[in-house]
Amino acid sequence: MISFAGGLPNPEFFPVKELEKSSVEVFRKQGKQVLQYAGSQGYLPLREWIAHRYSQKYNMNISPEEVVITGGSQQTIDIVSKMFLNPGDGVIVEKPTYLGGIQAMSGYSPEFLAVDLNSDGPNLEQIESHCLNHFPKFMYSIPNFQNPSGLCYSKGKREELAVLLKQYQLVLLEDDPYNEIRFDGDDLRPIFSYVPEQVFWTGSFSKMVAPGLRMGWVVLPKGMAPHFVKAKQSTDLHSNNLSQYILHHFLTNNNIDEHLSKIRKGYKLQCDYMKEMITKYLPKTVQTTSPQGGMFLWLTLPDEIDSEVLIHHCIKKGVAFVPGQSFFTSGKGNQHIRMNFSNSSFENIEKGIKIMAEEMIKLQQKGVSILV
Amino acid sequence: MISFAGGLPNPEFFPVKELEKSSVEVFRKQGKQVLQYAGSQGYLPLREWIAHRYSQKYNMNISPEEVVITGGSQQTIDIVSKMFLNPGDGVIVEKPTYLGGIQAMSGYSPEFLAVDLNSDGPNLEQIESHCLNHFPKFMYSIPNFQNPSGLCYSKGKREELAVLLKQYQLVLLEDDPYNEIRFDGDDLRPIFSYVPEQVFWTGSFSKMVAPGLRMGWVVLPKGMAPHFVKAKQSTDLHSNNLSQYILHHFLTNNNIDEHLSKIRKGYKLQCDYMKEMITKYLPKTVQTTSPQGGMFLWLTLPDEIDSEVLIHHCIKKGVAFVPGQSFFTSGKGNQHIRMNFSNSSFENIEKGIKIMAEEMIKLQQKGVSILV
Repeated sequence: MISFAGGLPNPEFFPVKELEKSSVEVFRKQGKQVLQYAGSQGYLPLREWIAHRYSQKYNMNISPEEVVITGGSQQTIDIVSKMFLNPGDGVIVEKPTYLGGIQAMSGYSPEFLAVDLNSDGPNLEQIESHCLNHFPKFMYSIPNFQNPSGLCYSKGKREELAVLLKQYQLVLLEDDPYNEIRFDGDDLRPIFSYVPEQVFWTGSFSKMVAPGLRMGWVVLPKGMAPHFVKAKQSTDLHSNNLSQYILHHFLTNNNIDEHLSKIRKGYKLQCDYMKEMITKYLPKTVQTTSPQGGMFLWLTLPDEIDSEVLIHHCIKKGVAFVPGQSFFTSGKGNQHIRMNFSNSSFENIEKGIKIMAEEMIKLQQKGVSILV
Repeated sequence: MISFAGGLPNPEFFPVKELEKSSVEVFRKQGKQVLQYAGSQGYLPLREWIAHRYSQKYNMNISPEEVVITGGSQQTIDIVSKMFLNPGDGVIVEKPTYLGGIQAMSGYSPEFLAVDLNSDGPNLEQIESHCLNHFPKFMYSIPNFQNPSGLCYSKGKREELAVLLKQYQLVLLEDDPYNEIRFDGDDLRPIFSYVPEQVFWTGSFSKMVAPGLRMGWVVLPKGMAPHFVKAKQSTDLHSNNLSQYILHHFLTNNNIDEHLSKIRKGYKLQCDYMKEMITKYLPKTVQTTSPQGGMFLWLTLPDEIDSEVLIHHCIKKGVAFVPGQSFFTSGKGNQHIRMNFSNSSFENIEKGIKIMAEEMIKLQQKGVSILV
């Protein structure tokens, strides 16, 4: 099976040897400490590392007291939802948005208020209208190289959204797992940096280092950490201590920027190659985004091809992708496909897309159109 | 500070070197695999090890398909609560019960239906009455060496409770983190073994191996795993992969029963010594439980000593414990104290209890009685 379906980072870039070395050091120097229960907010030196890195990167003044270590961004979404959402409460989401985000929030039975996502960011008029009519508890967004669309909010849209957040006292959950995986264009400031008092800014080591460690963090509005920590503590006492120590040792004993630079170069090559193969093989009526980072392309199919039909045919031929429907709270999206480029070889990218092209053309020729 | 407050295992028994070795092996042989995203139900070989061990121990037929790996028992309590509880729903709890359990369930705003805990188990009449009047969604209990009381349900009470569960179709969340830490008496079958179709039986590696790994599991009623996994996935995608692999390697390459035997012997010595010092120094009117396993003693104070007052005096003198109030959903419990014996040296046990004795006697002499 050639899979463009998963959201998997490229394992070729996992720093296996370096993490093995860090693990040995941690066991030898802090063995008993790392294996014991620990504080719910997370390992202070790791929180300090995070606070320092992003204070420097964006010329901010983040305190380690405002940082909480989590078991990955998914946990942050779950805990923020738990803190804010009661059944029926409104929550603004992008259309499309991250499937795992929808799942986490759905556990608290909110009313999803979807807003269109354009190439430069969300539709601000729709956000404003939702604020006026539905008093949403928060907005969930992924401004950098969104999963699934790969889109990135422009600087202008970030500034305008920040103004809106202030005006309507709207809380933002800014999910930013691909922050460090920009391979084209200029870095843009997180929305957190404009409105730190209203934004939960969540980051992840899954794409920077490795997802199997299940490590992320959240930078919180001042004074919010004790509330978040209390909610987190009730779900898991604290995050995995061993992973926290290994990760901190790895980050402080290796050149993380060199490591990230390798990932970025590699992902750019994979992304460019996938775009090239799409242009070469797929029908000209198929459109794709052109992401400046992250791990995904987002295809828009012509009306006569339904992605839910296409996937059945492709899976029979050994190729998988995620049909767009999963990323819409409204349950639509049959015209879209999410394509992961980070976890396939050049050879498989070409082979898989050729097969997809054949199946698309067959569907077009049959004139199949079961779009609802 | 001499602390009898925390619920910490004795770090002297952490298998630091063995885990270091397992960690190196895992990185070398399965580095890329262990660092990648993984399935939400957990690492199959680890689930197989758990299914095999407890099938053998209790002559049952547990399938790995019914086992889910969690980030510790705390997560199981949170997820089961999320699955079953809506605001106002009834949930039966022991009086007293585990503080973290109260916190996890409280996140879903249930009505706590407390039942008295006697030396041989819970008051069954009260359970029956709650079933008849409140239709509780489930009962949460810790039948082995309960935190905080150290009490253990008798064989007879287990059987009678099993009958009640069946009669009222009541689901049980059987929290069993101290199962392997029995240092006196005969092992008793889990209630799960009597009513496997209605019991969520949750175990933990925190006391068997080390809590810093944040690893536990739950054995589920047949057919329940997909529902539990879906709820868990929405909170964290999956449990820490590195810890799962290290733990599995450790368990299959070391003699776990020899390891557990050391812990049991050590804890028995610590428990016996603490009981001895209590008898030697504390007022004769102070009663204590006499646990056959686990990590806690539970003291009942004479009326004239309030544990909330005592703790303030003791902390000033450098001794900590947990006043009983935290373990009651009703907010009472001022006559009780939880004492952890597993994380203190003999020297500190004697020193700390002497100080507690002095403060208790002072309070008695002052005739202080602020019990409400």
